[in-house]
Amino acid sequence: MRKRVLLLGSTGSIGRNALGVLDALGENWKVVALAAGCRSADLAQQANRLKPDAVAIADSDVVDDLCRDLAYTPACFTGPDALRNLVDAVDFDIAICAVVGAGGLSATLRAVELGKRVALANKECMVIAGSILIPLAKRTGATILPIDSEHSAIFQAMQAGNRRDVRRIYLTASGGPFRTWDADAMERITVDQALQHPTWEMGPKITIDSATMMNKALEIVEARWLFDLEPDQIDVIIHPESIVHSLVEFCDGSIVAQLGTPDMRTPIQYALTYPDRQACPSPNLDLFSIGSLTFDRPDEARFPALRLGHYVAQKGGTSGTVFNAANEVAVELFRRNALSFGDISRFAEKILNDHTFIAAPTLEQLLDADAWARQEVAKCTVC
Amino acid sequence: MRKRVLLLGSTGSIGRNALGVLDALGENWKVVALAAGCRSADLAQQANRLKPDAVAIADSDVVDDLCRDLAYTPACFTGPDALRNLVDAVDFDIAICAVVGAGGLSATLRAVELGKRVALANKECMVIAGSILIPLAKRTGATILPIDSEHSAIFQAMQAGNRRDVRRIYLTASGGPFRTWDADAMERITVDQALQHPTWEMGPKITIDSATMMNKALEIVEARWLFDLEPDQIDVIIHPESIVHSLVEFCDGSIVAQLGTPDMRTPIQYALTYPDRQACPSPNLDLFSIGSLTFDRPDEARFPALRLGHYVAQKGGTSGTVFNAANEVAVELFRRNALSFGDISRFAEKILNDHTFIAAPTLEQLLDADAWARQEVAKCTVC
Repeated sequence: MRKRVLLLGSTGSIGRNALGVLDALGENWKVVALAAGCRSADLAQQANRLKPDAVAIADSDVVDDLCRDLAYTPACFTGPDALRNLVDAVDFDIAICAVVGAGGLSATLRAVELGKRVALANKECMVIAGSILIPLAKRTGATILPIDSEHSAIFQAMQAGNRRDVRRIYLTASGGPFRTWDADAMERITVDQALQHPTWEMGPKITIDSATMMNKALEIVEARWLFDLEPDQIDVIIHPESIVHSLVEFCDGSIVAQLGTPDMRTPIQYALTYPDRQACPSPNLDLFSIGSLTFDRPDEARFPALRLGHYVAQKGGTSGTVFNAANEVAVELFRRNALSFGDISRFAEKILNDHTFIAAPTLEQLLDADAWARQEVAKCTVC
Repeated sequence: MRKRVLLLGSTGSIGRNALGVLDALGENWKVVALAAGCRSADLAQQANRLKPDAVAIADSDVVDDLCRDLAYTPACFTGPDALRNLVDAVDFDIAICAVVGAGGLSATLRAVELGKRVALANKECMVIAGSILIPLAKRTGATILPIDSEHSAIFQAMQAGNRRDVRRIYLTASGGPFRTWDADAMERITVDQALQHPTWEMGPKITIDSATMMNKALEIVEARWLFDLEPDQIDVIIHPESIVHSLVEFCDGSIVAQLGTPDMRTPIQYALTYPDRQACPSPNLDLFSIGSLTFDRPDEARFPALRLGHYVAQKGGTSGTVFNAANEVAVELFRRNALSFGDISRFAEKILNDHTFIAAPTLEQLLDADAWARQEVAKCTVC
């Protein structure tokens, strides 16, 4: 059967990989809508090739460039509500939500509201608003399938047993480029150093999140919502080779793991074809040549983000929202050399401590908390 | 719901572990029948504790000892058909077939004929008569669940996808005590050396089979039948730590593995409680303390059994029967110092080459081939 795909965030790393996967999946897969943030030329090129019915670009400053570059005339949306309007305007079966950061929330919520399959690469959505997204999906019948390699691995491994028999999960972490650095050296980390990931090729935001291990902190919170786990059922384990993508321990002591080359195309495709699988363009893992797989305990002293991740998963409410917002702004400031590497986690912690906590927030309250946290971080850097 | 368990081979390593598991599973699990080969005192002790309705002992020379030691009067069977008669005499839900070698075949066949759940530790049954057991189970609705740790791992990992999407499986092998020995040294291996397994505590037959890697050869054949795989879909991978119990590769490149401490109680219990899981008496795996897991290609020159295993899996028919029979007799002769370690594989290969192959044998033809092979090996050692 033909599948119509809406792709939010088509010009980023996940978006481009998703298009590669869709190309390989063949003619039963049709891209019906594409959306990007500001890269109008890339979006136009993708659209001219795939001829989706509609396109959206969030940055209205470049919509004219987009229209000029388009070789045909799809429906076109722009402005802050562009992505959400796109979701409403197009008939689709699967939405791939691959926008970076909080910007993808509104459109993702709408896709879930419509009861669609949502392939979610945007973990920030779940961190900010898991308390709203998950109950909403239950009501509407939407299926949220994770694209994060770790959560895709957990999702796959969980199928080897009943959900109620899951005792704990282990999220694997490469440890990033600074895994073995001492605390002093970590205070002098430069932006260029933080942008070099040892095993995964990803966009800049998530690469820096990997370096601080904020990425793993966000994944703890994401896992808490996606799989309805207690925070103490979620362990992080250092696995520098990035071959074992995560593990599930069942109550009988059996541990089931998913392994593969570190290539996002595998979890992207799985979220599309589930419960079926198809040959994937990602290179196969040669088990005979990997030699050894190593595991270690993470160091929460050098990577305080992990402690914060567990705290946020435990606390719930508005804490995920302000934690994510503080991190987004702090990463941006670090990239502009306005904050040090260590400040990213410190600011996230400060904002968590300072914010007025709401245990069961509405969407509006979440958005308010998000806006407040962003202002606070920006303010702090001025002082 | 109460489960009635019939245990064939209760005094062996698997049998005793199974009783430990059943004790821990609690009052919903009732042992209704016990059978052993010749250890009458152990059987009597088990029976006196558990009070099954019936017992069987294959060796009729010790049945009087058994009766004398029993503190109550269960139905009692003895002689070559004792185990099969026991299966017919008792109402049960699950048969655990943990007899070593070909002796368990007739009773296992009967349990499958009756459409029961069969927890199969006796891989020889599948090697000898997979071509009969598997179609029979399909007809009667019997469920055959493997107790071998490798096949239990494959069975669990396969649940992470559709059967048709399985590309290949990797059976892990510790490599046994002689993994790193050179070919010359391997010619001088003693019985005592072969009985020292580095990671698993098992009975003597399977421990020697692990040392020759005949065990892995038998597992290749077992997997071919249990999971309906082509022989070239079955790889053996050396994994000295015995933590990853086996792996399944799906067509999208995802590999799903089951891990745990090397303890037979986990796969035994899983075969009983599947699809559910319960807390198990086996110690839990501490992922943080394992450090590293290593993998390597097996050496078929030093372990020719592996090549033979693939050959037998490909050939089918009577080849599994004569291969297993030759190995059983050769192991026995090696234990009595009548054959060298290297002779075990050499005799198995010779018998494979010499035997009159039947592609689609009846059970009678399989039993004839089994008897012929046993005589041949015994004969050869005389010359």
